[in-house]
Amino acid sequence: MNLLENLKWRYATKRYNNQVKLADEKVMQIVEAARLAPTSSGLQPVEMILIKNQELKEKLVPIAMNQPQVKECSHLLVFAAWDSYTDQRMDNVFKNMELVREMKSGEMNQYRDGLKAHFGSLTKQQQFEHAARQAYIALGIAIAAAAELKIDSSPMEGFFNDQLDEILGLDKRGLKSVTILALGERDHQNDWLAPMKKVRFDLESVLTII
Amino acid sequence: MNLLENLKWRYATKRYNNQVKLADEKVMQIVEAARLAPTSSGLQPVEMILIKNQELKEKLVPIAMNQPQVKECSHLLVFAAWDSYTDQRMDNVFKNMELVREMKSGEMNQYRDGLKAHFGSLTKQQQFEHAARQAYIALGIAIAAAAELKIDSSPMEGFFNDQLDEILGLDKRGLKSVTILALGERDHQNDWLAPMKKVRFDLESVLTII
Repeated sequence: MNLLENLKWRYATKRYNNQVKLADEKVMQIVEAARLAPTSSGLQPVEMILIKNQELKEKLVPIAMNQPQVKECSHLLVFAAWDSYTDQRMDNVFKNMELVREMKSGEMNQYRDGLKAHFGSLTKQQQFEHAARQAYIALGIAIAAAAELKIDSSPMEGFFNDQLDEILGLDKRGLKSVTILALGERDHQNDWLAPMKKVRFDLESVLTII
Repeated sequence: MNLLENLKWRYATKRYNNQVKLADEKVMQIVEAARLAPTSSGLQPVEMILIKNQELKEKLVPIAMNQPQVKECSHLLVFAAWDSYTDQRMDNVFKNMELVREMKSGEMNQYRDGLKAHFGSLTKQQQFEHAARQAYIALGIAIAAAAELKIDSSPMEGFFNDQLDEILGLDKRGLKSVTILALGERDHQNDWLAPMKKVRFDLESVLTII
Protein backbone atom coordinates (compact mmCIF):
# COMPACT_ATOMS: atom_id res chain seq x y z
CA MET A 1 0.00 0.00 0.00
CA ASN A 2 1.39 3.40 -0.99
CA LEU A 3 0.21 5.01 2.24
CA LEU A 4 2.32 2.63 4.32
CA GLU A 5 5.43 3.52 2.32
CA ASN A 6 4.59 7.21 2.61
CA LEU A 7 4.11 6.96 6.37
CA LYS A 8 7.48 5.24 6.73
CA TRP A 9 9.09 8.01 4.66
CA ARG A 10 7.67 10.90 6.67
CA TYR A 11 8.88 12.13 10.04
CA ALA A 12 8.23 15.20 12.19
CA THR A 13 10.63 17.54 10.43
CA LYS A 14 12.50 19.79 12.85
CA ARG A 15 14.56 21.91 10.44
CA TYR A 16 13.49 23.09 7.00
CA ASN A 17 15.48 24.46 4.09
CA ASN A 18 14.03 27.96 4.13
CA GLN A 19 15.16 28.58 0.55
CA VAL A 20 12.59 26.10 -0.74
CA LYS A 21 9.10 27.45 -1.32
CA LEU A 22 6.48 24.87 -2.14
CA ALA A 23 4.25 25.37 -5.16
CA ASP A 24 0.88 26.68 -3.98
CA GLU A 25 -0.82 24.18 -6.25
CA LYS A 26 0.71 21.30 -4.27
CA VAL A 27 -0.09 22.83 -0.90
CA MET A 28 -3.68 23.30 -2.01
CA GLN A 29 -3.94 19.55 -2.61
CA ILE A 30 -3.09 19.03 1.06
CA VAL A 31 -5.70 21.61 2.07
CA GLU A 32 -8.23 19.90 -0.20
CA ALA A 33 -7.56 16.51 1.40
CA ALA A 34 -8.14 18.06 4.84
CA ARG A 35 -11.35 19.68 3.59
CA LEU A 36 -12.61 16.26 2.48
CA ALA A 37 -11.90 14.72 5.91
CA PRO A 38 -15.00 13.32 7.60
CA THR A 39 -16.36 14.93 10.76
CA SER A 40 -18.87 13.86 13.36
CA SER A 41 -22.42 14.02 11.91
CA GLY A 42 -20.99 15.95 8.97
CA LEU A 43 -20.83 19.13 11.07
CA GLN A 44 -17.43 20.24 9.71
CA PRO A 45 -16.45 22.35 12.73
CA VAL A 46 -12.94 22.88 11.40
CA GLU A 47 -11.37 25.82 9.56
CA MET A 48 -7.84 26.26 8.26
CA ILE A 49 -5.51 29.24 8.10
CA LEU A 50 -2.68 28.90 5.62
CA ILE A 51 0.22 31.19 6.47
CA LYS A 52 2.73 32.00 3.72
CA ASN A 53 3.74 35.47 4.96
CA GLN A 54 7.34 35.29 6.19
CA GLU A 55 7.01 38.22 8.58
CA LEU A 56 4.04 36.60 10.29
CA LYS A 57 5.80 33.23 10.52
CA GLU A 58 8.73 34.93 12.25
CA LYS A 59 6.38 36.68 14.64
CA LEU A 60 4.99 33.29 15.66
CA VAL A 61 8.36 31.79 16.66
CA PRO A 62 8.35 33.11 20.26
CA ILE A 63 4.81 31.89 20.89
CA ALA A 64 5.78 28.43 19.56
CA MET A 65 8.55 27.58 22.04
CA ASN A 66 11.09 29.09 19.61
CA GLN A 67 10.81 26.10 17.33
CA PRO A 68 12.72 27.01 14.14
CA GLN A 69 10.38 25.09 11.82
CA VAL A 70 7.76 27.82 12.29
CA LYS A 71 9.82 30.34 10.33
CA GLU A 72 11.94 27.97 8.22
CA CYS A 73 9.04 26.07 6.69
CA SER A 74 7.43 27.12 3.44
CA HIS A 75 3.78 27.15 4.58
CA LEU A 76 2.19 26.89 8.03
CA LEU A 77 -1.26 25.29 8.05
CA VAL A 78 -3.21 26.14 11.22
CA PHE A 79 -6.20 23.97 12.11
CA ALA A 80 -8.85 25.78 14.14
CA ALA A 81 -12.10 24.44 15.58
CA TRP A 82 -15.40 26.07 16.45
CA ASP A 83 -15.41 27.29 20.04
CA SER A 84 -18.98 25.93 20.31
CA TYR A 85 -21.80 24.39 18.28
CA THR A 86 -24.14 27.35 18.01
CA ASP A 87 -27.65 27.06 16.58
CA GLN A 88 -26.64 29.34 13.73
CA ARG A 89 -23.74 27.07 12.77
CA MET A 90 -25.90 23.96 12.92
CA ASP A 91 -28.59 25.63 10.81
CA ASN A 92 -25.96 26.55 8.25
CA VAL A 93 -24.60 22.97 8.07
CA PHE A 94 -27.97 21.44 7.33
CA LYS A 95 -29.11 24.21 5.00
CA ASN A 96 -25.98 23.45 2.98
CA MET A 97 -26.62 19.70 3.15
CA GLU A 98 -30.21 20.08 1.92
CA LEU A 99 -28.97 22.30 -0.93
CA VAL A 100 -26.16 19.99 -2.09
CA ARG A 101 -28.31 16.86 -1.87
CA GLU A 102 -31.35 18.55 -3.40
CA MET A 103 -33.49 17.66 -0.43
CA LYS A 104 -36.68 19.40 0.62
CA SER A 105 -36.07 22.43 2.81
CA GLY A 106 -36.48 21.31 6.42
CA GLU A 107 -35.99 17.61 5.66
CA MET A 108 -33.02 17.48 8.04
CA ASN A 109 -34.71 19.50 10.81
CA GLN A 110 -35.47 16.56 13.07
CA TYR A 111 -31.93 15.21 12.89
CA ARG A 112 -30.50 18.71 13.32
CA ASP A 113 -32.65 19.41 16.35
CA GLY A 114 -31.52 16.16 17.96
CA LEU A 115 -27.93 17.29 17.54
CA LYS A 116 -28.75 20.75 18.88
CA ALA A 117 -30.26 19.16 21.97
CA HIS A 118 -27.22 16.92 22.40
CA PHE A 119 -24.64 19.69 22.09
CA GLY A 120 -26.84 22.03 24.11
CA SER A 121 -26.50 19.60 27.02
CA LEU A 122 -22.69 19.97 26.95
CA THR A 123 -20.58 22.77 28.39
CA LYS A 124 -18.92 25.15 25.94
CA GLN A 125 -15.56 23.55 26.78
CA GLN A 126 -16.95 20.08 26.02
CA GLN A 127 -18.33 21.35 22.73
CA PHE A 128 -14.93 22.76 21.81
CA GLU A 129 -13.16 19.53 22.81
CA HIS A 130 -15.47 17.63 20.50
CA ALA A 131 -14.80 20.03 17.62
CA ALA A 132 -11.05 19.93 18.32
CA ARG A 133 -11.04 16.14 17.94
CA GLN A 134 -12.51 16.52 14.45
CA ALA A 135 -9.61 18.84 13.56
CA TYR A 136 -7.25 15.97 14.36
CA ILE A 137 -8.94 13.75 11.76
CA ALA A 138 -8.20 16.47 9.19
CA LEU A 139 -4.66 16.73 10.55
CA GLY A 140 -4.12 12.99 10.11
CA ILE A 141 -5.37 13.14 6.54
CA ALA A 142 -3.27 16.23 5.77
CA ILE A 143 -0.18 14.39 7.06
CA ALA A 144 -0.97 11.49 4.72
CA ALA A 145 -1.52 13.94 1.83
CA ALA A 146 1.80 15.71 2.41
CA ALA A 147 3.64 12.39 2.57
CA GLU A 148 2.08 11.25 -0.72
CA LEU A 149 3.40 14.44 -2.34
CA LYS A 150 6.81 13.88 -0.70
CA ILE A 151 6.38 17.17 1.11
CA ASP A 152 7.91 17.25 4.58
CA SER A 153 5.67 18.20 7.45
CA SER A 154 5.66 18.71 11.21
CA PRO A 155 2.47 18.36 13.23
CA MET A 156 2.74 20.78 16.16
CA GLU A 157 0.92 21.33 19.43
CA GLY A 158 3.67 23.27 21.21
CA PHE A 159 2.39 26.84 20.96
CA PHE A 160 0.35 29.25 23.03
CA ASN A 161 -3.10 28.80 21.54
CA ASP A 162 -4.59 31.94 23.05
CA GLN A 163 -1.82 34.13 21.68
CA LEU A 164 -2.08 32.57 18.23
CA ASP A 165 -5.85 33.07 18.29
CA GLU A 166 -5.38 36.73 19.07
CA ILE A 167 -2.73 37.31 16.40
CA LEU A 168 -4.87 35.59 13.75
CA GLY A 169 -8.11 37.16 14.99
CA LEU A 170 -9.64 33.71 15.53
CA ASP A 171 -11.27 34.65 18.81
CA LYS A 172 -13.39 37.25 16.99
CA ARG A 173 -14.55 34.53 14.58
CA GLY A 174 -15.58 32.06 17.30
CA LEU A 175 -12.62 29.81 16.50
CA LYS A 176 -9.76 28.41 18.56
CA SER A 177 -6.50 27.14 17.15
CA VAL A 178 -5.95 23.45 17.82
CA THR A 179 -2.88 22.22 15.98
CA ILE A 180 -0.47 23.33 13.25
CA LEU A 181 1.11 21.48 10.34
CA ALA A 182 4.35 23.03 9.07
CA LEU A 183 5.08 22.18 5.42
CA GLY A 184 8.27 22.46 3.38
CA GLU A 185 11.44 20.61 2.49
CA ARG A 186 13.66 19.17 5.17
CA ASP A 187 17.11 20.66 5.73
CA HIS A 188 19.07 17.52 4.96
CA GLN A 189 22.27 18.90 6.55
CA ASN A 190 20.92 20.29 9.78
CA ASP A 191 17.89 18.28 10.85
CA TRP A 192 19.12 16.03 13.66
CA LEU A 193 15.91 13.96 13.47
CA ALA A 194 16.15 13.21 9.73
CA PRO A 195 18.54 10.23 10.02
CA MET A 196 16.93 8.80 13.17
CA LYS A 197 14.89 5.59 13.15
CA LYS A 198 11.13 5.90 13.50
CA VAL A 199 10.01 4.71 16.92
CA ARG A 200 6.69 2.93 17.37
CA PHE A 201 5.57 0.31 19.84
CA ASP A 202 5.38 -3.21 18.39
CA LEU A 203 2.08 -4.29 16.94
CA GLU A 204 1.53 -6.74 19.80
CA SER A 205 1.82 -3.89 22.32
CA VAL A 206 -0.89 -1.78 20.72
CA LEU A 207 -3.33 -4.26 19.21
CA THR A 208 -5.77 -6.71 20.79
CA ILE A 209 -7.69 -9.03 18.47
CA ILE A 210 -11.01 -10.46 19.59
CA MET B 1 -3.15 12.72 -6.00
CA ASN B 2 -4.49 9.24 -5.22
CA LEU B 3 -5.55 10.24 -1.73
CA LEU B 4 -7.92 12.89 -3.09
CA GLU B 5 -9.59 10.35 -5.36
CA ASN B 6 -9.82 7.88 -2.47
CA LEU B 7 -11.37 10.50 -0.17
CA LYS B 8 -13.97 11.32 -2.80
CA TRP B 9 -14.77 7.60 -3.17
CA ARG B 10 -15.25 6.94 0.53
CA TYR B 11 -18.29 7.84 2.63
CA ALA B 12 -19.54 6.96 6.11
CA THR B 13 -21.05 3.60 5.24
CA LYS B 14 -24.34 2.98 7.06
CA ARG B 15 -25.19 -0.53 5.87
CA TYR B 16 -22.74 -3.34 5.14
CA ASN B 17 -23.12 -6.58 3.24
CA ASN B 18 -22.67 -8.93 6.16
CA GLN B 19 -21.83 -11.83 3.88
CA VAL B 20 -18.53 -10.21 2.96
CA LYS B 21 -15.62 -10.88 5.30
CA LEU B 22 -12.48 -8.85 4.62
CA ALA B 23 -9.15 -10.63 4.34
CA ASP B 24 -7.28 -10.21 7.62
CA GLU B 25 -4.17 -9.35 5.65
CA LYS B 26 -5.88 -6.25 4.24
CA VAL B 27 -7.32 -5.18 7.57
CA MET B 28 -3.87 -5.49 9.10
CA GLN B 29 -2.57 -2.93 6.58
CA ILE B 30 -5.11 -0.47 7.96
CA VAL B 31 -4.02 -1.28 11.50
CA GLU B 32 -0.39 -0.85 10.47
CA ALA B 33 -1.09 2.58 8.97
CA ALA B 34 -2.75 3.62 12.23
CA ARG B 35 0.21 2.28 14.20
CA LEU B 36 2.54 4.46 12.13
CA ALA B 37 0.47 7.60 12.81
CA PRO B 38 2.40 10.33 14.58
CA THR B 39 1.52 11.33 18.13
CA SER B 40 2.44 14.27 20.31
CA SER B 41 6.08 13.99 21.44
CA GLY B 42 6.06 10.41 20.16
CA LEU B 43 4.17 9.27 23.24
CA GLN B 44 1.87 6.88 21.34
CA PRO B 45 -0.98 6.93 23.89
CA VAL B 46 -3.27 4.97 21.57
CA GLU B 47 -4.20 1.29 21.47
CA MET B 48 -6.51 -0.57 19.11
CA ILE B 49 -8.94 -3.41 19.63
CA LEU B 50 -9.89 -5.27 16.47
CA ILE B 51 -13.20 -7.09 16.83
CA LYS B 52 -13.97 -9.93 14.42
CA ASN B 53 -16.17 -12.01 16.72
CA GLN B 54 -19.75 -11.85 15.43
CA GLU B 55 -21.34 -12.55 18.81
CA LEU B 56 -19.45 -9.66 20.37
CA LYS B 57 -20.36 -7.31 17.51
CA GLU B 58 -24.03 -8.14 18.01
CA LYS B 59 -23.70 -7.53 21.73
CA LEU B 60 -22.42 -4.03 20.99
CA VAL B 61 -25.41 -2.95 18.85
CA PRO B 62 -27.58 -1.76 21.78
CA ILE B 63 -24.74 0.31 23.26
CA ALA B 64 -24.14 1.92 19.85
CA MET B 65 -27.56 3.51 19.30
CA ASN B 66 -28.68 0.33 17.49
CA GLN B 67 -26.63 1.28 14.44
CA PRO B 68 -26.69 -1.76 12.14
CA GLN B 69 -23.14 -1.25 10.83
CA VAL B 70 -21.80 -2.50 14.18
CA LYS B 71 -22.97 -6.04 13.49
CA GLU B 72 -23.11 -5.98 9.68
CA CYS B 73 -19.51 -4.86 9.14
CA SER B 74 -16.68 -7.33 8.74
CA HIS B 75 -14.30 -5.89 11.36
CA LEU B 76 -14.75 -3.24 14.05
CA LEU B 77 -11.61 -1.31 14.92
CA VAL B 78 -11.86 0.41 18.32
CA PHE B 79 -9.41 3.21 19.09
CA ALA B 80 -8.69 3.63 22.79
CA ALA B 81 -6.50 6.19 24.53
CA TRP B 82 -4.58 6.15 27.78
CA ASP B 83 -6.72 7.43 30.64
CA SER B 84 -3.65 9.37 31.86
CA TYR B 85 0.06 9.86 31.21
CA THR B 86 1.53 7.92 34.12
CA ASP B 87 5.24 7.99 34.97
CA GLN B 88 5.45 4.29 34.17
CA ARG B 89 4.03 4.84 30.69
CA MET B 90 6.38 7.76 29.99
CA ASP B 91 9.37 5.72 31.21
CA ASN B 92 8.36 2.92 28.88
CA VAL B 93 8.07 5.26 25.86
CA PHE B 94 11.55 6.66 26.28
CA LYS B 95 13.16 3.34 27.23
CA ASN B 96 11.81 2.03 23.92
CA MET B 97 13.02 5.13 22.05
CA GLU B 98 16.54 4.82 23.47
CA LEU B 99 16.57 1.14 22.53
CA VAL B 100 15.35 1.59 18.92
CA ARG B 101 17.65 4.55 18.28
CA GLU B 102 20.62 2.95 20.04
CA MET B 103 21.00 5.90 22.36
CA LYS B 104 22.71 5.87 25.74
CA SER B 105 20.43 4.80 28.55
CA GLY B 106 19.08 7.95 30.20
CA GLU B 107 19.83 10.21 27.22
CA MET B 108 16.15 11.17 26.95
CA ASN B 109 15.66 11.66 30.69
CA GLN B 110 15.68 15.46 30.61
CA TYR B 111 13.15 15.64 27.80
CA ARG B 112 11.03 12.94 29.44
CA ASP B 113 11.06 14.71 32.78
CA GLY B 114 9.94 17.94 31.13
CA LEU B 115 6.97 16.10 29.67
CA LYS B 116 6.23 14.44 33.02
CA ALA B 117 6.17 17.87 34.65
CA HIS B 118 3.89 19.22 31.91
CA PHE B 119 1.37 16.38 32.06
CA GLY B 120 1.63 16.28 35.84
CA SER B 121 0.30 19.86 35.87
CA LEU B 122 -2.88 18.76 34.05
CA THR B 123 -5.95 17.07 35.49
CA LYS B 124 -6.50 13.41 34.65
CA GLN B 125 -9.39 14.47 32.38
CA GLN B 126 -7.14 16.94 30.52
CA GLN B 127 -4.52 14.21 30.12
CA PHE B 128 -7.13 11.89 28.66
CA GLU B 129 -8.45 14.59 26.31
CA HIS B 130 -4.92 15.10 25.00
CA ALA B 131 -4.46 11.37 24.45
CA ALA B 132 -7.89 11.11 22.81
CA ARG B 133 -6.92 13.74 20.23
CA GLN B 134 -3.95 11.61 19.22
CA ALA B 135 -6.32 8.71 18.60
CA TYR B 136 -8.09 10.90 16.04
CA ILE B 137 -4.87 11.33 14.05
CA ALA B 138 -4.68 7.54 13.84
CA LEU B 139 -8.37 7.44 12.92
CA GLY B 140 -7.80 9.91 10.07
CA ILE B 141 -4.92 7.86 8.75
CA ALA B 142 -6.87 4.59 9.08
CA ILE B 143 -9.72 6.15 7.07
CA ALA B 144 -7.24 7.08 4.33
CA ALA B 145 -5.76 3.56 4.44
CA ALA B 146 -9.16 1.88 4.12
CA ALA B 147 -10.08 4.12 1.19
CA GLU B 148 -6.82 3.29 -0.61
CA LEU B 149 -7.70 -0.40 -0.29
CA LYS B 150 -11.26 0.34 -1.47
CA ILE B 151 -12.55 -0.97 1.82
CA ASP B 152 -15.66 0.79 3.09
CA SER B 153 -15.53 2.30 6.54
CA SER B 154 -17.62 4.21 9.06
CA PRO B 155 -16.00 6.38 11.72
CA MET B 156 -18.27 6.28 14.76
CA GLU B 157 -18.62 8.25 17.98
CA GLY B 158 -22.20 7.31 18.76
CA PHE B 159 -21.77 4.69 21.48
CA PHE B 160 -21.67 4.55 25.26
CA ASN B 161 -17.96 4.68 25.93
CA ASP B 162 -18.17 3.51 29.55
CA GLN B 163 -20.17 0.43 28.62
CA LEU B 164 -17.82 -0.44 25.78
CA ASP B 165 -14.85 -0.01 28.11
CA GLU B 166 -16.38 -2.42 30.58
CA ILE B 167 -17.28 -5.04 27.97
CA LEU B 168 -13.76 -4.91 26.49
CA GLY B 169 -12.07 -4.68 29.89
CA LEU B 170 -10.40 -1.42 28.89
CA ASP B 171 -10.99 0.21 32.26
CA LYS B 172 -8.81 -2.43 33.91
CA ARG B 173 -6.02 -1.60 31.44
CA GLY B 174 -6.11 2.16 32.05
CA LEU B 175 -7.65 2.77 28.66
CA LYS B 176 -10.81 4.52 27.48
CA SER B 177 -12.50 3.95 24.14
CA VAL B 178 -12.54 7.06 21.98
CA THR B 179 -13.84 6.23 18.52
CA ILE B 180 -14.61 3.21 16.33
CA LEU B 181 -13.99 2.51 12.66
CA ALA B 182 -16.30 -0.12 11.15
CA LEU B 183 -14.80 -1.87 8.10
CA GLY B 184 -16.39 -3.98 5.40
CA GLU B 185 -18.15 -3.78 2.06
CA ARG B 186 -21.11 -1.51 1.56
CA ASP B 187 -24.55 -3.00 0.99
CA HIS B 188 -25.12 -1.49 -2.44
CA GLN B 189 -28.86 -2.21 -2.35
CA ASN B 190 -29.75 -1.01 1.11
CA ASP B 191 -27.41 1.79 2.11
CA TRP B 192 -29.43 4.99 1.71
CA LEU B 193 -26.27 7.10 2.04
CA ALA B 194 -24.33 5.33 -0.73
CA PRO B 195 -25.85 7.29 -3.67
CA MET B 196 -25.90 10.65 -1.84
CA LYS B 197 -23.54 13.47 -2.74
CA LYS B 198 -20.69 14.23 -0.37
CA VAL B 199 -21.34 17.47 1.49
CA ARG B 200 -18.48 19.80 2.40
CA PHE B 201 -18.33 23.54 2.83
CA ASP B 202 -16.70 25.34 -0.09
CA LEU B 203 -12.98 25.97 0.15
CA GLU B 204 -13.55 29.71 0.61
CA SER B 205 -15.70 29.03 3.69
CA VAL B 206 -13.06 27.00 5.48
CA LEU B 207 -9.74 28.48 4.37
CA THR B 208 -8.07 31.79 5.07
CA ILE B 209 -4.78 32.53 3.32
CA ILE B 210 -2.33 34.98 4.85
